[in-house]
Amino acid sequence: MARRVITLGTDFGVADHFVGVMKGVILKINSEVDLVDLSHQVNSFDILQGALLVGLSYPYFAAGTIHLVVVDPGVGSARRPILVCAAGQFFVAPDNGVLSLVYEREQPLEARHITADRYFLNPVSSTFHGRDIFAPVAAWLSRGVPAADFGELIEDYVRIPFPRPTRVKGLLRASVIKIDKFGNMLTNITAQDIPELISERPAPFKIVINQREITRLLRSFAEASASEAFGYVGSSGFLEIGVNRGSAARVLDAAPGTEVIVLISERS
Amino acid sequence: MARRVITLGTDFGVADHFVGVMKGVILKINSEVDLVDLSHQVNSFDILQGALLVGLSYPYFAAGTIHLVVVDPGVGSARRPILVCAAGQFFVAPDNGVLSLVYEREQPLEARHITADRYFLNPVSSTFHGRDIFAPVAAWLSRGVPAADFGELIEDYVRIPFPRPTRVKGLLRASVIKIDKFGNMLTNITAQDIPELISERPAPFKIVINQREITRLLRSFAEASASEAFGYVGSSGFLEIGVNRGSAARVLDAAPGTEVIVLISERS
Amino acid sequence: MARRVITLGTDFGVADHFVGVMKGVILKINSEVDLVDLSHQVNSFDILQGALLVGLSYPYFAAGTIHLVVVDPGVGSARRPILVCAAGQFFVAPDNGVLSLVYEREQPLEARHITADRYFLNPVSSTFHGRDIFAPVAAWLSRGVPAADFGELIEDYVRIPFPRPTRVKGLLRASVIKIDKFGNMLTNITAQDIPELISERPAPFKIVINQREITRLLRSFAEASASEAFGYVGSSGFLEIGVNRGSAARVLDAAPGTEVIVLISERS
Repeated sequence: MARRVITLGTDFGVADHFVGVMKGVILKINSEVDLVDLSHQVNSFDILQGALLVGLSYPYFAAGTIHLVVVDPGVGSARRPILVCAAGQFFVAPDNGVLSLVYEREQPLEARHITADRYFLNPVSSTFHGRDIFAPVAAWLSRGVPAADFGELIEDYVRIPFPRPTRVKGLLRASVIKIDKFGNMLTNITAQDIPELISERPAPFKIVINQREITRLLRSFAEASASEAFGYVGSSGFLEIGVNRGSAARVLDAAPGTEVIVLISERS
Repeated sequence: MARRVITLGTDFGVADHFVGVMKGVILKINSEVDLVDLSHQVNSFDILQGALLVGLSYPYFAAGTIHLVVVDPGVGSARRPILVCAAGQFFVAPDNGVLSLVYEREQPLEARHITADRYFLNPVSSTFHGRDIFAPVAAWLSRGVPAADFGELIEDYVRIPFPRPTRVKGLLRASVIKIDKFGNMLTNITAQDIPELISERPAPFKIVINQREITRLLRSFAEASASEAFGYVGSSGFLEIGVNRGSAARVLDAAPGTEVIVLISERS
Repeated sequence: MARRVITLGTDFGVADHFVGVMKGVILKINSEVDLVDLSHQVNSFDILQGALLVGLSYPYFAAGTIHLVVVDPGVGSARRPILVCAAGQFFVAPDNGVLSLVYEREQPLEARHITADRYFLNPVSSTFHGRDIFAPVAAWLSRGVPAADFGELIEDYVRIPFPRPTRVKGLLRASVIKIDKFGNMLTNITAQDIPELISERPAPFKIVINQREITRLLRSFAEASASEAFGYVGSSGFLEIGVNRGSAARVLDAAPGTEVIVLISERS
């Protein structure tokens, strides 16, 4: 039987023992599993960035993959642990909206409230459910325990409002959702939001960010002039703003939440 | 046969080739092994933080796990390489005290001076024993070479004094031993040191850190008021100081070594 | 059959989804593979540091290992993807010189222009060839697809000039090529460049960096005086400058590119 993959995405950082401990717990239950770190550098308690991490990653994993997502500011409170089956994959996470991008794209799906404490590391602490609940549940799941054994189906799982652009005629109001390591800025705009620009003969437009204007959509970084900020449809399907061999976020002084305005002229 | 797990904990960072090279050396000797990073972000030469990393992690790993711990300021000197068998697991490290927490908890144990240079990567360098001694020894051990083949038993392995609280009546003098990624402060106080506080009806107390007073022990972060510094027994069994969705270390200006005073009133 | 090893070395950082996505792509094609991170902390677009990362690492990996190296400032331009077979190992990378250290040491070798787009993740994006070309090619290679299936042999692969010391009699002009996590400075000087110093009775010499003089070559850090900057032949074969339990780079205010002068006296 092929080894199952469990991915780990957290805000735990990599300096402490937290991630290693979760892996120890998993491997003790199922030594025949492959562990893949998505990232542990989500900003502390930043559910939206956690949602983006798993949302941008899972489409590239095989059916049967189990994604363990632990960005969990409410640990120890009444927030539920959940197990979601969607797109042939599994997601084990706190019910705080960190799976919102999965919910958006993968309907219908099955979400369960994890209650079967026989699969937990007992006694369960009030501060480290990654170790005591999420890791062992993922491990038992990878050993073949059916999803239904972990708890009942629920419908009222928590969604966080993913910021969406609003468009009134030729004026699109949107925002930066993420800055990547290179300083490229992901916006919440997809190609469907700006069909006039994604065409052989794009309409005249400008993108305004912090009073700076961007007037070119390119296909690749190599086409850009030196230090030019330009737009492109990024590898995840969102409109991004980049600077060739430089940081667009620095050039435009942008951060997650920064407003992005797109003005599209009617073709005359 | 199940694959063996080798964990790696070092102060090597993750920007250089050091960790990858150790993994290459291991996999060349035994390709049927699972490698788990505990962390490579131990502060350079910080034996106590290395001891905490492995000490807080190993209890969650399966019997037979091999922990490779390389925080090694004395590389190239006369300090010995050692192999410790304790709690059904194995520890390969320099003999500089980095295994002190294991020694404290896991007596009796077997410690050996690694001398069998037929298992080394020869010639052995004077600056990278992680590559030349520790990694290949861990790899051969994972292939089933008996511990006794690596060298003779020793009793005089190096222990570093792990800071312990002192208590005189209701006054406990302790210290911060670690700050985690969230800014939570681990102290060296365990529940046994403060039995009056860990009870249904705790005695009145205050914890004083840098002239700030902490007067509540809570079970979880969710119970705390906004920006309140509070105490809790952390997931590793130590008393910790935290701030819900904030950094206690920043709020209290604390670092490893900061003094922690606990004043416990007699119940009237 | 033993599992194949694929290493990953990139400038992607570990905060984004990029590395996880590449691993998902690989594991979807071949779940029976071991993934090893060399590092993802290469400075953005720094081909020389990428070349050093893979060049200092591959000699310690087993025959058959596949090294995926993605430092790719020219993604989306006409630069070619290549597959290099050298030293019994495989290298999948953009043709921008990031394999220059391999080329230097491992002649003859076979380099191919990867053109077989049936092995790509289609449609191929213009900004993430790590996901769409390099990862799937590495994965199919690990499943046993012969190298020749990926494209034709080429001879004109790109080499970057690796900085070399120049020597005129007793005066050697060299440079710092890398600073490691501890602040040790790797120079581009090897033992063959300074035979008079690597001997039982070394000739008198001084090393001058930023007007500071270094006059001792030692075998290990333990031999150094407190805060003394000293030379040693490092674990990768290059002359390095270190400070015991300190950062030589900070003490000498050095960075990659800093000039290193070695003055060697004739033995009288």
